[in-house]
Amino acid sequence: MALPQVGVIMGSTSDWPTMEQCCDVLQELTIPFEKRVVSAHRTPDEMFRYAEEAEQRGLKVIIAGAGGAAHLPGMVAAKTVLPVIGVPIKTSTLNGLDSLYSIVQMPGGVPVATVSIGQAGAVNAGLLAAEILGAHDETVREQLRQRREAIRRRVLETANLDG
Amino acid sequence: MALPQVGVIMGSTSDWPTMEQCCDVLQELTIPFEKRVVSAHRTPDEMFRYAEEAEQRGLKVIIAGAGGAAHLPGMVAAKTVLPVIGVPIKTSTLNGLDSLYSIVQMPGGVPVATVSIGQAGAVNAGLLAAEILGAHDETVREQLRQRREAIRRRVLETANLDG
Amino acid sequence: MALPQVGVIMGSTSDWPTMEQCCDVLQELTIPFEKRVVSAHRTPDEMFRYAEEAEQRGLKVIIAGAGGAAHLPGMVAAKTVLPVIGVPIKTSTLNGLDSLYSIVQMPGGVPVATVSIGQAGAVNAGLLAAEILGAHDETVREQLRQRREAIRRRVLETANLDG
Amino acid sequence: MALPQVGVIMGSTSDWPTMEQCCDVLQELTIPFEKRVVSAHRTPDEMFRYAEEAEQRGLKVIIAGAGGAAHLPGMVAAKTVLPVIGVPIKTSTLNGLDSLYSIVQMPGGVPVATVSIGQAGAVNAGLLAAEILGAHDETVREQLRQRREAIRRRVLETANLDG
Amino acid sequence: MALPQVGVIMGSTSDWPTMEQCCDVLQELTIPFEKRVVSAHRTPDEMFRYAEEAEQRGLKVIIAGAGGAAHLPGMVAAKTVLPVIGVPIKTSTLNGLDSLYSIVQMPGGVPVATVSIGQAGAVNAGLLAAEILGAHDETVREQLRQRREAIRRRVLETANLDG
Amino acid sequence: MALPQVGVIMGSTSDWPTMEQCCDVLQELTIPFEKRVVSAHRTPDEMFRYAEEAEQRGLKVIIAGAGGAAHLPGMVAAKTVLPVIGVPIKTSTLNGLDSLYSIVQMPGGVPVATVSIGQAGAVNAGLLAAEILGAHDETVREQLRQRREAIRRRVLETANLDG
Amino acid sequence: MALPQVGVIMGSTSDWPTMEQCCDVLQELTIPFEKRVVSAHRTPDEMFRYAEEAEQRGLKVIIAGAGGAAHLPGMVAAKTVLPVIGVPIKTSTLNGLDSLYSIVQMPGGVPVATVSIGQAGAVNAGLLAAEILGAHDETVREQLRQRREAIRRRVLETANLDG
Amino acid sequence: MALPQVGVIMGSTSDWPTMEQCCDVLQELTIPFEKRVVSAHRTPDEMFRYAEEAEQRGLKVIIAGAGGAAHLPGMVAAKTVLPVIGVPIKTSTLNGLDSLYSIVQMPGGVPVATVSIGQAGAVNAGLLAAEILGAHDETVREQLRQRREAIRRRVLETANLDG
Repeated sequence: MALPQVGVIMGSTSDWPTMEQCCDVLQELTIPFEKRVVSAHRTPDEMFRYAEEAEQRGLKVIIAGAGGAAHLPGMVAAKTVLPVIGVPIKTSTLNGLDSLYSIVQMPGGVPVATVSIGQAGAVNAGLLAAEILGAHDETVREQLRQRREAIRRRVLETANLDG
Repeated sequence: MALPQVGVIMGSTSDWPTMEQCCDVLQELTIPFEKRVVSAHRTPDEMFRYAEEAEQRGLKVIIAGAGGAAHLPGMVAAKTVLPVIGVPIKTSTLNGLDSLYSIVQMPGGVPVATVSIGQAGAVNAGLLAAEILGAHDETVREQLRQRREAIRRRVLETANLDG
Repeated sequence: MALPQVGVIMGSTSDWPTMEQCCDVLQELTIPFEKRVVSAHRTPDEMFRYAEEAEQRGLKVIIAGAGGAAHLPGMVAAKTVLPVIGVPIKTSTLNGLDSLYSIVQMPGGVPVATVSIGQAGAVNAGLLAAEILGAHDETVREQLRQRREAIRRRVLETANLDG
Repeated sequence: MALPQVGVIMGSTSDWPTMEQCCDVLQELTIPFEKRVVSAHRTPDEMFRYAEEAEQRGLKVIIAGAGGAAHLPGMVAAKTVLPVIGVPIKTSTLNGLDSLYSIVQMPGGVPVATVSIGQAGAVNAGLLAAEILGAHDETVREQLRQRREAIRRRVLETANLDG
Repeated sequence: MALPQVGVIMGSTSDWPTMEQCCDVLQELTIPFEKRVVSAHRTPDEMFRYAEEAEQRGLKVIIAGAGGAAHLPGMVAAKTVLPVIGVPIKTSTLNGLDSLYSIVQMPGGVPVATVSIGQAGAVNAGLLAAEILGAHDETVREQLRQRREAIRRRVLETANLDG
Repeated sequence: MALPQVGVIMGSTSDWPTMEQCCDVLQELTIPFEKRVVSAHRTPDEMFRYAEEAEQRGLKVIIAGAGGAAHLPGMVAAKTVLPVIGVPIKTSTLNGLDSLYSIVQMPGGVPVATVSIGQAGAVNAGLLAAEILGAHDETVREQLRQRREAIRRRVLETANLDG
Repeated sequence: MALPQVGVIMGSTSDWPTMEQCCDVLQELTIPFEKRVVSAHRTPDEMFRYAEEAEQRGLKVIIAGAGGAAHLPGMVAAKTVLPVIGVPIKTSTLNGLDSLYSIVQMPGGVPVATVSIGQAGAVNAGLLAAEILGAHDETVREQLRQRREAIRRRVLETANLDG
Repeated sequence: MALPQVGVIMGSTSDWPTMEQCCDVLQELTIPFEKRVVSAHRTPDEMFRYAEEAEQRGLKVIIAGAGGAAHLPGMVAAKTVLPVIGVPIKTSTLNGLDSLYSIVQMPGGVPVATVSIGQAGAVNAGLLAAEILGAHDETVREQLRQRREAIRRRVLETANLDG
C-alpha cells in the first residue's frame, strides 16, 4: 500500500462515527491515508511525537477531529508546519460550539483550517485535504472536478422534487 | 514579478485593514500574491469569473475575507477545486460571529478552510496558504520553521515579564 | 395552469419537509408557483441562471430555503431585483442559528426578507409572498384577510381551554 | 407631493439615526414615503390605528424599526395584510440580537420581512420596499438595476486597492 | 366561585402543557384565577380588550405565557398598569432563548416581570402572582411560607440520597 | 419620612449608576423606599438578615440589582415570601447575559421577577414595584396611568421627527 | 470509616445521575467523602450551616453541583475559605449554559473552581478534589499518575481503531 | 526568597494586565510565586517542560491565563497532576467566551479549575490558589478569613450609598 499522505487523527474512539465520513471521502478519492486515536489530554507525548514526525514520515496534511475543549488540532498545528485541518465534533452539551471556538480561534502564528461542525465537516475535511494535495497535482484536481460534476448531476436529477 | 500563487480577495475595501495583515505575511515569506476586491453581492459575475479562472491563471490557493452574511469564501469555493481559505471579518453588530458561522458552516461537498475572526485570522490565512504551498515545497516549509523559531525566541526573551 | 408568480427554491431535497409548508400556503391561496432544488454550492451556475431569468419568466417573488452556511437566498438576491424571501432551515448542530445569521445579515445593497427559522418560517414565507403580490392586488389582500379571520375564529373557539 | 407608498415607522426618536438610512434610500429612488414615531409600548392605540388605516391610506409597504423587545414590526403585521419589513435596531446590551430574535421569530400566520441589524438593515429595508413596489412596476425595477450597476462600477473602480 | 384575581393567558393552546403548571400552583394556593388563550398576533383586538378591561374586572395580576417572538406579555403590559408576569415558552428551534429575550428586554416605561423558561417558569409565575397578592395579604404570605416549609422538609428527608 | 415600602439593594456601589434610575422612578412616584448595598458574596449573613427582616420591617417589595454570577436577587428570594424584582446589571465581559441567566433561570419554587438588562431594567424595576403596590392601591395605579399618559403625549409631540 | 475529606453536595436529587460520576471517582481513589442534597433556594439556612461547619468538620474541599440559576457553589464559597468546586448541571432549556455562567462568573473575592458542564465535569470535579488533596499528599499524586497512565494505555491499545 | 509555591503563567505578554491582578493577590497574601510567559502555540516544548518539572520544582498549584483558543491551561493540566487553575482572558472579538469554552470544557480525566473571565477571574485565581494551599495550612486559611472580613467591613461602611 502506498505511503499515507494524509494523517487522520481524533481525540477519542467516540469521534470515529464522525471522522469515518472523512476517511470514506479519502478512500473514494484513492488518497492514501492513515487513521489513529491521538488524544491531546490523555496521550500528550504521543501527540507531540506524532506531530513532530509527521513531516519526515511523508505526510502532507493532517486532519484532526476533537470535541469540547478540542485542543488536538491546535496543539498538533503548533508542532508542525504541515497544514492541519480541524473538525469540530458535535458535543452533547454545547452542540459543538465549544469545539468550534476552541479549534478556530487560534492566535496569529499557528493556523488551523477549520471546517463545519460534525459529519458535514468531516466530509469537507477529506475534500479539503484532497484540494491541498491537488494544489500541486492535476490528477487529484480532476478527480475533485468529476466528483463535483457527479453531485451536480444528482442534484439536477431530483431538482423537480417529483417523488 | 513572479506569477501570483495566492489570490487574496475581500468583499469590500473596508476589509482591507484586516486583510492587509494577510498580505504582509505573504510578502514576508516572499510568496507571490495578488489582491483584489471581489464582492459576492455587488459583483457576483466577476466573483464567478475570478473563481473559474483562478486555476488556469496559476493560482494555487485563494484567501477570501468577508463579514456579515459573508458569502464570498463559500461561493468561490463552489466554483473552484483550489483550496479556499475564509477569513471572518469582525462586524460591528455581532462581532464577527455572523461572519464565522456563514463561512465555516459549509455543507458537505464544498469545504472552506476557516481561520479565526479578524486580524489574527488574516495573519493565519497567510500562514495557512504558505503551509499549503509548503506541502510540496521544502523551501517554504523551512521558511515557516524559521519564522516559528524566531517567534519562539522572542517569546523566550520576554518570558520573564521583567520590563 | 397559470404562469407561476412565485418561485420556491431550496438548497437540498432534505429541505422539502420544511419548504412544503410554504407551498401548501401558496396552494391554499391559489397563487401559482413553481418549486425546485437549486443549490448555491452544488449547482452554482444553475442558481445564477435561475436568478437571472426569474424576472423575464414572469416570477414576481422568489422564496429560498437554505440551512447552515445558507448562501442561496443572498446569492439569488444578488442576481435579481425581485424581492427574495429567505427561510432559515433548522440545522442539527446550531439549530438554524447559523442559517439565520447567514441569511439575515446581508450587507447594505442586497436585501433578503428573512422569516423565522423552520416550519413557521416556511408558512410565513408563503404568506409574505402573498402579501407582496397583494400590495397591488386587492383580491389577494381579501384572501389574506379572510384567512386571518378564519384563524382568529379558530383561536376564539378554543380560547377557553375547555378540553 | 405624491401620496406616500411606504410608511417608515420606528419605536423611538433614538432609532432615527438608523432609520434615516432607510429614508435616504427611498428618497434616492424617488419613492414617496412618510416617516413617524409609533411606539408599540408607549402609544399602543396609535400603533393599532396606524396599522389599521395604512391600507386605505394607500400605503403599499410598512417599514418598522425597533430595538430590544422590539414588538412594533410584529404587532403592526398582526393588524394589516400589507407586507411589513422589520429593522432590528442595535442595542447597547445585546447588540441587537434581542431585537433580531423578537422581530424574526414570528409564529406561523403573521410574517415580518426581517433585514440585517442596524444601518445596513435600514438601507436594505428601503431597497426591499422598492423591490416589493417593483414587483409590479418595471420603472422601479429599472431604477434598482441602475443603482446596482452604479455600485458594481464603484466596486470595480477601487477593486485593485491601489490606495 | 370567587371573582378571579389572576388572569392566566397564553398565546396558543400548545402553550397549555407549560401554563398548566402555573394554574396548578394557583389552585393549590386557592387563589381564584381564570385562564384563556389570547394571541397577540392572531387575536390582537381581543388581546387589547382583555388588557384594557382587566383592571375593572377585578384582576390584580396577569400572567402571560408566549413563545418565539412572544409579544403577548409586553403588549398586555403596554395596555394596563396591573403587574404582568411573562413566562417564556420553550421553543423547538432556539430553546426559548428567543422567547426570553422578547419578553425580558422591554424598554424603560413598561415592565414585564419575567420568570425562567418553560415549566419551572410557569410554576414560578403562579408563586410570584401569589407573592404580589400576598404583599397586602398576610393569609397568602402564610400559605407561601407553609408551602416553602413543606418543600424544605421534603428536601431534608431525601437529602442523604439513600435510595 | 414615611416607612419605606420598597427596599432597593444592590451587590456593589458600582451598581449605583444603574440602580439610581430605579430610585429616581420611586421618588418621582413618591413611593417611600430605602437603598442599600447588600452583597451576596461579601456580606452573605447581612444579606440573609436583610431578607429575613424585610417583611416585619414593613417592606412590601424588594428590588435587587446584581451583575455577573448575580446571586443576590435569587438568594434574597429564597429567604422571603415578599416579591423580589431582579435587575441584571450590564457586565464588561458578557454584556449582562451572565447576569440575566443567573437571575432569571430560577428553579421552580422561588421566583424572581426579572426585568431587562441595565438602566432600562432599573427604571422598569421601579415601575414594577409601583404596579405591585398599585395592585391594592388605586392612587398608585392612577399615578402610573398619568405617567404613561404623559409619556404618550411626549411621544406624539415628537412623532413627526421634525426637528 | 475515615472522616470525609471531600463534601459532595448538589441542589436536587435530580442532579444525582450527574454527581454520581464524581462520587465514583472519589471512591475509586479511596478518598473519603460524604454526599448530600443541599439546596441554595429550598434549604438556604442548611446550606449556610453546611458551609460554615465544613472546615471544623475536617472537610478539605467542597464539590457543589447545581443547574439553572445554580447559586449553590457560589453561596457556599461565600461562606467558607475551603476551595469550592462547581459542577454546572446540564439543563433542558439552555443546555447548562445558564448553569455555567452562574457558577463561573463569580465576582473578584470569592472564587469557584468551575469544571465542564455535565458528567465530564462531575468526573473532573472528583479528580480536581484529589489534585487539591494531592498538593500536599504524594500518595494521592501517585494514585492520580497511575490513573492517568492506565487511561493512556487504554487509549494506545485502541488507537488503531481496528475494531 | 522562599521557593515559589504557585506558578503563574500566561500565553502572551499582552495577558499581563489581567494576570497582574492575580500576582497582586498572591503578594498580598505573602504566598511565594513565580510568573512567566509560556505559550502553548509558540513555545510548546517549553510548556511541556514547565508542566513536567513543576511538581519536582516544588510548585503546589499552577495558574494559567490564556485567550481565544486558550489551550495553555488544559495542556499544562494534561502534563501534571498538580491542580491547574485557568483564567479566561477577555478577547476583542468574542469577549472571552471563546477563552471560557476552551478552558472549561475539558473532557473527563483532565480537570482545569476555571474562574471568571478577565480581571475578576485573575483575582479569584490567586485566591483559589491560596485556598488550595490553605486546605492544609491553617495560617493561609486565617489570612483568607481576615481578607474577607476586611472586605466585608468595607462593604458595610459604604452600604448606605451616602456619597
